[in-house]
Amino acid sequence: MKAEIISTGTEILLGNIVDANTSFLAEHLAQIGIDLNYASSVGDNFDRMLEVMKCAGSRSDLILTTGGLGPTSGDITREVIAALFSEKMEVDPAQKAHLEKFFTGRGIPMSENNLKQASLIPSAQAIPNPNGTAPGWWAEKNGKIVIAMPGPPGEMQPMWHNHVGPALQRRSGSIIVSKVLKSYGVPEGTMDEQLSVLLKSPNPTLALYAKIDGINMRITAKANTAEEAKKLIDSHETAVRKILGESIWGVDDDTLEGVVGRMLMKKNMTVAVAESFSIASLMQILARAPESPRFFKGGFLANSDEAKLSLGLVWGSGGIGDAAKGLAALARDKMGASIGIGIDGQIQTVNNEKNARVFIAIVGPKGMTPVMRNYSGRLMMVPNRIAYTALFELRKMLE
Amino acid sequence: MKAEIISTGTEILLGNIVDANTSFLAEHLAQIGIDLNYASSVGDNFDRMLEVMKCAGSRSDLILTTGGLGPTSGDITREVIAALFSEKMEVDPAQKAHLEKFFTGRGIPMSENNLKQASLIPSAQAIPNPNGTAPGWWAEKNGKIVIAMPGPPGEMQPMWHNHVGPALQRRSGSIIVSKVLKSYGVPEGTMDEQLSVLLKSPNPTLALYAKIDGINMRITAKANTAEEAKKLIDSHETAVRKILGESIWGVDDDTLEGVVGRMLMKKNMTVAVAESFSIASLMQILARAPESPRFFKGGFLANSDEAKLSLGLVWGSGGIGDAAKGLAALARDKMGASIGIGIDGQIQTVNNEKNARVFIAIVGPKGMTPVMRNYSGRLMMVPNRIAYTALFELRKMLE
Repeated sequence: MKAEIISTGTEILLGNIVDANTSFLAEHLAQIGIDLNYASSVGDNFDRMLEVMKCAGSRSDLILTTGGLGPTSGDITREVIAALFSEKMEVDPAQKAHLEKFFTGRGIPMSENNLKQASLIPSAQAIPNPNGTAPGWWAEKNGKIVIAMPGPPGEMQPMWHNHVGPALQRRSGSIIVSKVLKSYGVPEGTMDEQLSVLLKSPNPTLALYAKIDGINMRITAKANTAEEAKKLIDSHETAVRKILGESIWGVDDDTLEGVVGRMLMKKNMTVAVAESFSIASLMQILARAPESPRFFKGGFLANSDEAKLSLGLVWGSGGIGDAAKGLAALARDKMGASIGIGIDGQIQTVNNEKNARVFIAIVGPKGMTPVMRNYSGRLMMVPNRIAYTALFELRKMLE
Repeated sequence: MKAEIISTGTEILLGNIVDANTSFLAEHLAQIGIDLNYASSVGDNFDRMLEVMKCAGSRSDLILTTGGLGPTSGDITREVIAALFSEKMEVDPAQKAHLEKFFTGRGIPMSENNLKQASLIPSAQAIPNPNGTAPGWWAEKNGKIVIAMPGPPGEMQPMWHNHVGPALQRRSGSIIVSKVLKSYGVPEGTMDEQLSVLLKSPNPTLALYAKIDGINMRITAKANTAEEAKKLIDSHETAVRKILGESIWGVDDDTLEGVVGRMLMKKNMTVAVAESFSIASLMQILARAPESPRFFKGGFLANSDEAKLSLGLVWGSGGIGDAAKGLAALARDKMGASIGIGIDGQIQTVNNEKNARVFIAIVGPKGMTPVMRNYSGRLMMVPNRIAYTALFELRKMLE
């Protein structure tokens, strides 16, 4: 099956947004063994979109579109597909009822414009979209498939995972299975060297991706049966773990906060946090974890030295190391948690480049663990990187 | 002049990299008034790239390519352009000398493969690339321009700024200016109806984008002078403001937290926050604002009812409305701020759908303002939506 992606939206061609949907779909098509030969973007213009769609139809079996399913007059993807298939759009009663329910649930009136979101053509089936008002379309005729998905990634990605991806995988025939191993603390370059032999394997393949919570390693195997594929993955995973050992903290959908949460709950322990400098990033990540209230009490953000005083912090020399230790104790004591984490830091300039010098202190039943780190690179990203360092250190302590 | 972008590279179609060059070029073409109607990506395959290039040539006057100018056999952009123009590539002595100098300067031997980077066709001129070994190509014949630039953004962007952009601006003549108006609280469908006449205007154009902080409206005008464009925008802006009035809170790069921060600093006031349910989202957004420590003290996150008690909260009936009011007062008093914001909420099920029932309380010098809201849709997004509601309410109070 030869696939082609068409992302629509004048905002893409004005450079207002980066088209992240195309790379998402490209990566996921590759994972299920579907070849992607072309990807294009086109504005919200009927004639041009139809031309691009016709061209795609002449060279590909599967066209995936994103965007243009909203309620406004600028949203024309449905209309273009109808023209491509020479069919007429009509309001589908089931879709209309579903849409009305969505609006009733929000307590806001449905505008007449939204009705076109409930429309279909005879060759199209609606793809459920629990996260928005626009269902997707799966249109199929004469061996060509056109799948239209919404533009917002928060709607498109679940639609892919729950419907489009599994349905396409069933059609594509051969079985592709992959497993992700998640690591923290080893730089990508080092890992690339250490795994160089394994990275060259054609099946299973191994690929590295740098993420905010460390380096992910994706092992992908292609086989005739799921069992065979799993075997291939298992032997590759054993080899990777032999090399990287302790720095692997999870697999697949694991998150570092989820892993730490499970460990805390197992030990019947709780954690509280007091942050300065890291703008509540650690609190936010911990609060998002599954069953968070069972192991995370909450905490404090001090947005200035004055605010640290308001919280009751007394810190000896006034350095960030002392402040972090004081914040850790404060969080634990005030929130009545078994473990307290304190974070403080400052921006410093080294060789004309700004970097962040950060202290993370973790106080638990066995005393205080202070960690000092320097973060360079994009300062915007530093708060989240600090939070993941803290979680990784907490995991080490709990083991 | 009608432009089209072609980004090349199999890594884009495997989803290994996000194609940031296209959005860069799209934005910069818009700034110099060149219409971009299409953008596509194609892998490193001669036939497919030539096909895409021919198709582009049939509908656009200007083709900008990125990638495929390296020394390897997979780098075929030059070869494809030569085929498109039916011309023969030959090593250019000046380019060869330049390349040899580049390698000598780095003290490494030049490989034979690099010679093709010194090649040209009769219709092409080399575009200097001080940041790499691959010069760009400016190929022009029968009114069609093909500009080939390297794929690495660190080489492509300087080439655009120093050569390609200025040269194209000289040719394009007309000027494009745009302005973004930012609103909160009016649903996209309603806005689309209210602005329907203005949305139909061909110049200036008006486009709506849903963002987490509300609906953005982009007005774009095309004219012969910047002054004329500004006039067109001004009159459209006046018309939009007449309709939407109070719901517009900012323009262009304004953020809601930045606007609120400026208002607080002007009044010499500070704010502190106590959140439950909204996972520190409001704290994080306020802490990211420019000059944040001058007006934002920090605050508390209570991740369970037990944690509210630890913070010292006493809430009468135990309802979320009372809790929000208590948290607001607690934040203000404990952090010594002029204004306290308290947030509490709970998930409830209505018509089999989960939604979030939320209270936001703002306590300031003039007393307490409680706001009740229901949020449906993706629960993941609710904390940030709550935070922006709180900021919008705070802005109303400060006005």
